[in-house]
This record gives sequence, structure tokens and C-alpha cells, in this order.
Amino acid sequence: MYNQKMRKLGEERSAIRELFEYGNRRKAEIGADNVFDFSLGSPSVPAPARVGEEIARLMRETPPQILHGYTSAPGAIEARAAVADYIRTAFGVPMQSDLVYLTCGAAASLAAVFGALCGRGEEIIVPAPFFPEYRVFIEQAGGVLVPVPVRADLHLDVGAIGRAVTPATAAVLINSPNNPTGAVYRDEEIAALAALLREKSKGRDPILLIADEPYRELCYVAPPVYPMAAYEHTVVCYSFSKSLSLAGERIGYIAVSPQCAEAQGLFAAVAGAARALGYVCAPSLFQRAATACLGMSSDVGTYRENGALLYSALTEMGYRCAPPEGAFYLFVKALEQDAVRFSERARAHELLLVPSDSFGMEGYVRVSYCVPRAVIERSLPAFSALKKEYTGK
Amino acid sequence: MYNQKMRKLGEERSAIRELFEYGNRRKAEIGADNVFDFSLGSPSVPAPARVGEEIARLMRETPPQILHGYTSAPGAIEARAAVADYIRTAFGVPMQSDLVYLTCGAAASLAAVFGALCGRGEEIIVPAPFFPEYRVFIEQAGGVLVPVPVRADLHLDVGAIGRAVTPATAAVLINSPNNPTGAVYRDEEIAALAALLREKSKGRDPILLIADEPYRELCYVAPPVYPMAAYEHTVVCYSFSKSLSLAGERIGYIAVSPQCAEAQGLFAAVAGAARALGYVCAPSLFQRAATACLGMSSDVGTYRENGALLYSALTEMGYRCAPPEGAFYLFVKALEQDAVRFSERARAHELLLVPSDSFGMEGYVRVSYCVPRAVIERSLPAFSALKKEYTGK
Repeated sequence: MYNQKMRKLGEERSAIRELFEYGNRRKAEIGADNVFDFSLGSPSVPAPARVGEEIARLMRETPPQILHGYTSAPGAIEARAAVADYIRTAFGVPMQSDLVYLTCGAAASLAAVFGALCGRGEEIIVPAPFFPEYRVFIEQAGGVLVPVPVRADLHLDVGAIGRAVTPATAAVLINSPNNPTGAVYRDEEIAALAALLREKSKGRDPILLIADEPYRELCYVAPPVYPMAAYEHTVVCYSFSKSLSLAGERIGYIAVSPQCAEAQGLFAAVAGAARALGYVCAPSLFQRAATACLGMSSDVGTYRENGALLYSALTEMGYRCAPPEGAFYLFVKALEQDAVRFSERARAHELLLVPSDSFGMEGYVRVSYCVPRAVIERSLPAFSALKKEYTGK
Repeated sequence: MYNQKMRKLGEERSAIRELFEYGNRRKAEIGADNVFDFSLGSPSVPAPARVGEEIARLMRETPPQILHGYTSAPGAIEARAAVADYIRTAFGVPMQSDLVYLTCGAAASLAAVFGALCGRGEEIIVPAPFFPEYRVFIEQAGGVLVPVPVRADLHLDVGAIGRAVTPATAAVLINSPNNPTGAVYRDEEIAALAALLREKSKGRDPILLIADEPYRELCYVAPPVYPMAAYEHTVVCYSFSKSLSLAGERIGYIAVSPQCAEAQGLFAAVAGAARALGYVCAPSLFQRAATACLGMSSDVGTYRENGALLYSALTEMGYRCAPPEGAFYLFVKALEQDAVRFSERARAHELLLVPSDSFGMEGYVRVSYCVPRAVIERSLPAFSALKKEYTGK
């Protein structure tokens, strides 16, 4: 009875959620201060004050029938224009408001783009490790996720991506700054990827580059090139969830590069997929409030300091991980090959670390450092004890 | 290139939108006051003041990381509890918060429920005329919409629904107060439908009743029975769009009756479908703001007066339509069999009326009276001239 696939999807908890729920139970048992919960990627710093000011201004100045009323499906005219202006100005690439689609966040953006591209087994190449819901959305759209492991330094293996391309390849999906690794792809790797995609697109429909960019503003190295500036057939999926700490409000956008092959056709397919998935319009108040804050971000310095503190402490203890480049994740080598078992042993020290198996890669844990600094400080003896348990020192 | 079905869905404008866009062009040409736009079902009265007060209070009292942060996928605990309490108290039926799923509005609710039920050609019986997106959502989920015409008085033809049941029937979908007819189904027709469904469910998985109820509070006759009180295997899809004039904010809920067969399994399937469609959670601020206003509604009296004025004026002129019972629609018999042609001839009088063909029925137009009263008053000579053009009087 009922759709069994959906029932299973609804019943299975992701490893991340499972750990988070365990953490909540454990906090109730031994006190919140005694559990070091690095499980969730939920912003810990508040939205910029400007967001609240914009909401208050909109509530004061806009008639409620307009403010809370339907917008056209791709968004309010002024919100789409603001996004297009911002992309043109901030990144120096062509953009027009009729190729901007306001969405209910990054997940909705991705679901609509996969819906526009897939349907008959089209392949989407994704560097692994990757955000686990990519697979759910791609398979729901009738596509196939093709994982390609990153290099040992967690950066793109462009050669391996090239070898994974087949006639069924519709797109390559990149996510930089990356969840779960915290890597920020350098301009030269994006350039190499662009060159590869151009080469592989000869004599066939061009391979699309999908850039999932919710962490763009959370960057502690040189800011990455805007993907549209590097490759013409690019769609950016953006969300204000992390930059403005609005994860629950479900507001983001899709921007189709005007240099895409059949850009208007692709945009129409995105609109059709969004329609079929039940997205009527993005939440109207936040369409205006978020796009009034384009280019702003909540306090990134806090995340930077958290990352630096955790990185220096862990590496000093002898843990192996790459320095934090962006987002709010460290990807730490587990102290045994089985990351699930390592995560369980960490749990005995009240450390909640997500095993990398959930992200399509073995042997690591993801440590989300979007937590109060005090949690990191108090957790260090536990990390140290865990290390000692494995290595005796 | 790209998914052609989605591209077509994105490119085709619904007849309603088409007429609305025409109206906007025409208003620019001859002045907004000279176009009588009855095309859209968008609330014309403002949200209750309480909604704005709740938003201000929440912004003042809740830390922004919580207020704007992720909630669990089915919604914030307090929002789900508020909905369950309200349903128990207002309608006297059992309900529990773990069977309530906050959604991005009625469209998202329906898409998730169809996703939970369909996948292999399951049939959903829908009284015709019906809201055209039902077909899009059902087909996207892998189901089949089976239309069953209503009776001449626009009420349910329970006998015909019974004859349409097959072994593949998964559900009957009702929408009362109805879009596009404005009919409110009476308790005895819901009781007859319930008896039919019980009878037809013998020896097989029970047929579900899906009640799409965004217009519940917009009712000018005796308020209809709560469907769960009449039939055990019922899922209610609700939206605050019309009751609180929040159509653009995308906030609603699904409530699965605890008396449903395998209610928890159905709920899990709904959750799985919502996940696969890219719904992470319903907009978090409005989860709290809307559920703080449960049972309230914006000024229904305005719609009631609009409906009464239009009904009496049109019937006096000789138009045929049923008296307004609910929602903000009159379903008026076209003055020729071809409603599309009738709508075009109305357009020459600056009257924008949606032909019923869009709703799966011939020979009528939908008149949306969610407009300022002055628009109705000024439109009456145009209705009169149109009538004269057909009948000479």
C-alpha cells in the first residue's frame, strides 16, 4: 500500500539526522554542555540586522495583498531584476532578469534543474564526496548520479571527470565551497574543467556545468571565479540559507547563463519542472527581503575563527585534515579505515562526527564547525582522548 | 535538448495566466479602471492584522538562528502541535501532531500526497470541472486523473463517481468550497460519498479521500462537515493562502487522519515524496506566524458581498449561474456552447472571464469576484451589453 519507494525515503533517516537526533537525546541525559555536537550544517550566527530591517520596512511600506500575494512563478519582477543586476555587477558576466528564477532554496533549485535535464537516464557527474540529497533529487528526476572521487587533497580530479563522460552525460555538478570537505576549487581547476567540458562537448549537445553555490560567501581563501565567467553552458543554483543565515526560510535562485546553448529553452524546462514539482512561487516576503541584501553575509569571521581554532588544535594532536578553505566543514581522516566505527568510538567521547560514507566516500568524518566557539574549546580534550585511544599518545 | 515535456510545461501558459497577462497589457492601453479583470483567484482583502503582529512579535522574541533556521522536515514541533490541537478542537476528530506535515502551500501538499500514492498508473478520481494543475501534479507522480462530471447544479454525482472506480483507483479528490464553481458540498453528499467509498473499498486496499481545502473558511452557506469526520481514510490538504491572504508565502499543511489505513506508513510516504521533490521544510517564519492564526480569516464579508452583488445583477440580466456558496468564484453559463469564443466576445467588452474548458468542462466561464467592489459595479453595463449582443435584450 502506498508508494514503497517514497515510504522508504520517508522512513530512512540520513546518517546526519540520525546522529543529530542521538545528540538531542544524549544532551537531555547528560546536559547540553557535555555533548560536542558537530553533526549539522545549520548556521550558528544570526542573520545580518539588515534582513530584519528589510522585513520591517516591507511590512510597513507594502500593502499586504501585494507583499504576501502570489508573484509570477519565476519571482517578483523587482527581485529577479535585483539578482540579475547583482550577478552582472559583482561578477562581470552577462545576466538578464528573464533567466533568473527565484526558488524555495538550493534543494528546490537543484530539483528543478535536474527535472529540466533528466528523464531518460541522463548522467550527472558529481565529484565525491558529495551532499547525499543530490542522489535523491537526480534519481527522482529520472537521471543517474555518476560519482568521481576527488584527489587526495580534496580538489577536482579533472582527468577522472573526463574519463567518466559518456554520450549520456548531461552535466557536471560542482559545489564550491564544498560540503562536506570545505574545499574551495581554485580558478585553475575550474579553467581546466571548462576546457575539458568544451573539448568533450564537440559534436554533441554541450555538457552543462551546474554550480551549487550556497556557500559562496563563506570563503577563507581567494574568492573563487564565478563559474559563468569560466564556462558558457553554466547554471548557478544559489541559496541565501548560509550567507544570510536563512536556512529555514527556503529562499534561493537559479541563474541560467545567457551564453548557455538554448538558454531560453533551458529556462522554460526549469520553469516546467518547478511547476510539475508543485512550486508555485518562492516565498514572497523573503523574495524581497533577501534580494535587498544581495552580496551581504552574516558574520563569516566567526566561522573563519572556528575553523582555524579547530584545524590547528586537531593537526597539533596528530589528526590529518586539509586546512579550512570555505563553508563550515573540516573533513578529517578517520583513525581507522571504517569511518562508521570511528564515528561510534568518537560518540563514546561525546563527539558527534558524521562518517564520510554518507557522502559517498570512505575513511573520513565531517566536522561541522558552525557551533559556538565554547563547544570547540570544550571538545578538545575529547578529541585528544580519542586520538590517545587509537595511538596511545 | 533538455526535457521536452518540462519545456512544454514551462512554455505553455495556462488560459488563466494568458488572460491575466492580456489584461495587464490592455490596462496599460486603456487604463486600469476600464478593464474588468475577473481572471485570477488572488485574495483581494489584506491579511488579518494579527498576522503582521505575530511576525513582529516573532522577530522581536525569537533568536534569528532559531526563527529563520531549519525546522525538521515536517515542521517545527510547536507548529505541528498547534495544527493538531486546532483540528481536534475545531472539528472534533482525532488528530496527532506526528501526522501533521507543514508544507509550502496547497500545491506542495498535493504534489507530496500524489507522490505518496502514485507511481504505477494509480487512478485519482476528480469531479470535473477542476483546478487544472491537479492533472500536472498527478501525471508528474505517475498517476492518472479520472474526471467525473458534476451534476447540473455543480454538486457531486456520487453515482457517477462509483461507476468510475476501478481496481486501480487510489483516491477520490474533492475540493470544497470549489474552484472553479464556488459550490460547497453538503453534508449529505459527503456522507453519500463516504458510504460509496466504504462499499467500494471492501476486499481491497481502502480508497483514500483527499480533501483539498484552501477555501474552507470562505463559505457563505452552512460550513461543510470536516471530511475526516465523515470518512476514516482521509487526508486533508490545507493552505493558508486564501484564509489569511498569504498566497505568495507558500504555507499550508497536510493532515493524515489517524483512522487511515496504515496512517504512519502513508505519512512516511508523504514525507519521502516531499523529500524527493526538494522540499526541505516549509518557510520557518510563516510556520509560526500562520499557525498562531489558526481559525482566523481575512475579511470574508467582503467576498460574500461581492458574490451577492454579482449574482443578483447577473441573474437579473438573464445570465444563468448557481448562487455563490463559497470561495470567490461564480460559474456562469456561457451564452453560446463554445466558452472560449464567449470569453473572446466578453473581452471585446473589456470583461476578462476564464472559459471553463481550462477546468475540464465546456460551456461556462469562471468569474473571480476577489476584486474591489467598484470593479464589479463598473462592469455591470458591460455584462449587460454582452447579454444584449447575444439575445437582443
